[in-house]
Amino acid sequence: MELKPGVFDAEADSVRRSLGLLGIPHVAEVTTARVYRIQFDGVDASEAERLAARAVDRLLANPVIHRVTVAPAAR
Amino acid sequence: MELKPGVFDAEADSVRRSLGLLGIPHVAEVTTARVYRIQFDGVDASEAERLAARAVDRLLANPVIHRVTVAPAAR
Repeated sequence: MELKPGVFDAEADSVRRSLGLLGIPHVAEVTTARVYRIQFDGVDASEAERLAARAVDRLLANPVIHRVTVAPAAR
Repeated sequence: MELKPGVFDAEADSVRRSLGLLGIPHVAEVTTARVYRIQFDGVDASEAERLAARAVDRLLANPVIHRVTVAPAAR
């Protein structure tokens, strides 16, 4: 889950400034994202993906500002 | 960047409880992670990885509680 283009990412901006203050060079851009890994028991992959999408819609994401990718975990 | 095993993930716990309250079933476990994508300009991949590791050590991670993976972005 990340912020949509055009939505100000305050944490990323703070990281970019701080890296400059620390003298870490060549930083062109910083972005941030949040990962929620939800493990479902007793359901198949397609049902798990459906439930994950429901969790995103009902709880995790604000569609005004967030861009979300739902995908099986790389295990 | 994620919390080390044994470090309580308050946000994940809150998500797990809220999914239960919302009636989303079969949730066995929730974990969270934070992604910082840092783009470096004018350096090769190995130098970028070295600078990213320095950013982690100097700014982003607390080694007491965080487990960090530094990797080239999948573009």
